[in-house]
Amino acid sequence: MAGSPFESLEKTLEKHIPPVELKDVRRILFGNDTKKLELSQCAVEAALERDFELQGCMFEAGQEQLRQPRIVRVGLIQNAIVLPTDAPVMEQITALHRRVGEVVEVAAMCGVNIVCFQEAWTMPFAFCTREKMPWTEFAESAEEGPTIRFCQELAKKYNMIVVSPILERDEVHGDTLWNTAVVVSNSGAVLGKTRKNHIPRVGDFNESTYYMEGNTGHQVFQTQFGKIAVNICYGRHHPLNWFMYSMNGAEIIFNPSATVGELSEPMWPIEARNAAIANHCFTCAINRVGTEHFKNEFTSADGKKAHQDLGYFYGSSYVAAPDGSRSPGLSRTRDGLLVAELDLNLTRQINDKWGFKMTGRYDMYAQELTKAVQDDFKPNIVKE
Amino acid sequence: MAGSPFESLEKTLEKHIPPVELKDVRRILFGNDTKKLELSQCAVEAALERDFELQGCMFEAGQEQLRQPRIVRVGLIQNAIVLPTDAPVMEQITALHRRVGEVVEVAAMCGVNIVCFQEAWTMPFAFCTREKMPWTEFAESAEEGPTIRFCQELAKKYNMIVVSPILERDEVHGDTLWNTAVVVSNSGAVLGKTRKNHIPRVGDFNESTYYMEGNTGHQVFQTQFGKIAVNICYGRHHPLNWFMYSMNGAEIIFNPSATVGELSEPMWPIEARNAAIANHCFTCAINRVGTEHFKNEFTSADGKKAHQDLGYFYGSSYVAAPDGSRSPGLSRTRDGLLVAELDLNLTRQINDKWGFKMTGRYDMYAQELTKAVQDDFKPNIVKE
Repeated sequence: MAGSPFESLEKTLEKHIPPVELKDVRRILFGNDTKKLELSQCAVEAALERDFELQGCMFEAGQEQLRQPRIVRVGLIQNAIVLPTDAPVMEQITALHRRVGEVVEVAAMCGVNIVCFQEAWTMPFAFCTREKMPWTEFAESAEEGPTIRFCQELAKKYNMIVVSPILERDEVHGDTLWNTAVVVSNSGAVLGKTRKNHIPRVGDFNESTYYMEGNTGHQVFQTQFGKIAVNICYGRHHPLNWFMYSMNGAEIIFNPSATVGELSEPMWPIEARNAAIANHCFTCAINRVGTEHFKNEFTSADGKKAHQDLGYFYGSSYVAAPDGSRSPGLSRTRDGLLVAELDLNLTRQINDKWGFKMTGRYDMYAQELTKAVQDDFKPNIVKE
Repeated sequence: MAGSPFESLEKTLEKHIPPVELKDVRRILFGNDTKKLELSQCAVEAALERDFELQGCMFEAGQEQLRQPRIVRVGLIQNAIVLPTDAPVMEQITALHRRVGEVVEVAAMCGVNIVCFQEAWTMPFAFCTREKMPWTEFAESAEEGPTIRFCQELAKKYNMIVVSPILERDEVHGDTLWNTAVVVSNSGAVLGKTRKNHIPRVGDFNESTYYMEGNTGHQVFQTQFGKIAVNICYGRHHPLNWFMYSMNGAEIIFNPSATVGELSEPMWPIEARNAAIANHCFTCAINRVGTEHFKNEFTSADGKKAHQDLGYFYGSSYVAAPDGSRSPGLSRTRDGLLVAELDLNLTRQINDKWGFKMTGRYDMYAQELTKAVQDDFKPNIVKE
């Protein structure tokens, strides 16, 4: 089922539901219609030739008197790995650089200002195996190394912010590994890095074998194109994580992920979108595609026989807006680039309309949460 | 559009999408299929005769060795008001008692253990008018008064927990008004009351004109049928509110609401469901149905002319489970009773599987949130 050829929810709805009813279905499921963003013919042709899906959409905001529209284009890239997982490490990295590089070139043709890749984009998502070699060899420094240099080149060449989620090797602090997103400014400078705050222990996601919970808190990066943050993968299940990025001012929160159909697909359309609504910000959920096969078999702690893959990464990357609307999802099966034009003025407009921050009573929660984490916490339970 | 006769999303999908594709559509949209709960013929006939929709579904859990299944049936009731809004106050209240009473009788036939009514169920949702009279006359004491007596009779008669969200008059504390849910034990005793923590200032929801933010914190009620909490209406937009009920042990969180199509319909399927996922608990979202007309016109602060209703309450009540699945929604247009059989063991099973509480790092958030509410809070922003 998870590996079925089912291409996308949106396309299936469009194919079968008559227009008059489709309007209500789309409104209830996806909120206000996003407009289609017209992309240049050369971009469309390049995507066709390079065999990836290209979609564009727009989120508009109301006109204001004192602020100009703040128009930003974000690019979300989802892709399958290129070489088999037992190819030489550097060849796998180089092949992924090449593949993602040709998608970024199309993003540049589409006027993208900020591009974000999927989680651990330079490698297979090999943590299911619990083996250390050769997977830890994919780890790189966030400040130097082939991948960061590659991203710096892209950033300068295309005047684009690049969010690059990698397996990080921190040589300065005991050669430890981290799951990290590096943010490269459009100047080419490394603006900073932010680490995955919540590490899963579910299904085949044995990542806690490799790295610990991030120690970079909830940094927000002020870029020329707005304030951005990165909530990596499993952090999307934690509403407090989204919330704290938002409290620090994030207008766009990227969620580079790697997750499979059997485990999480029905949760995928809910969580990042709820975060956009609850925090009056844009969220960008990115998942890889395809099935990754490993040479050595491994078990999944589910009573089933040993096997060589962890299931089907279902893509379906999307952008959600603070007004509850969302973009169509990219394909469940193909590499893709989703270009979304955002007017960042929408975030404050929806903040003023709905007022969740104003009505949030955060002082009460700070007190209650401080009590709740104490050893002697007594839940507030009323009995007859 | 909001007042369109569109009956329900689920029915439209079933009508048009071929079975082979419907399976994937349903899986992505609604998670694991819930089983249909067979209800007694006399209940089905009574619902037909009394002209309301009756639906039943089951959420199952895995077998355990040391715990028996903990099977509970909840009933969610959604309804339109019965009399015109300018009928005498006591006649309106009595008519609603009669209507809801006949639905509760069917709930009893269905073996419901805990029933929850919609927000401010004894009255029209008149706060759009900003008038004080006659609407404040609908307020009643939580401890005595016709509505609590009525609920106590139902509770004893049917051995059922009754969650009764009313406009409360607190005579002891300066005759103040509150938006309150009273929880009546199946013994007939008032177990307690819990007040709406977050009050909206959006659209026609001028409730802050009538009552303040609740002062009862995040109490959980230990009943014979599990630990329950009530997150009233606008509180569903606040992830911290759901979270704190869950931290206090809630296994089922009811969300009695009143909300209209134009404002919130695309957010409705997202928020309570996200809360069930994020907090490893069941959530029950209840909304009223129909359009309520008022004698005096009022404006909506949206540049439009004065008018006499605040739009269409779209029903669509549903139950969401911790595993990401959800029940079908009740109708957008009709009175209804949704009976859901829950195995409460699912909450701890999903907690053990996904581990959001274990990986939640609440000490970090307690510290960050405590800082974030200070006057001199400096957002954690990195600049080039």
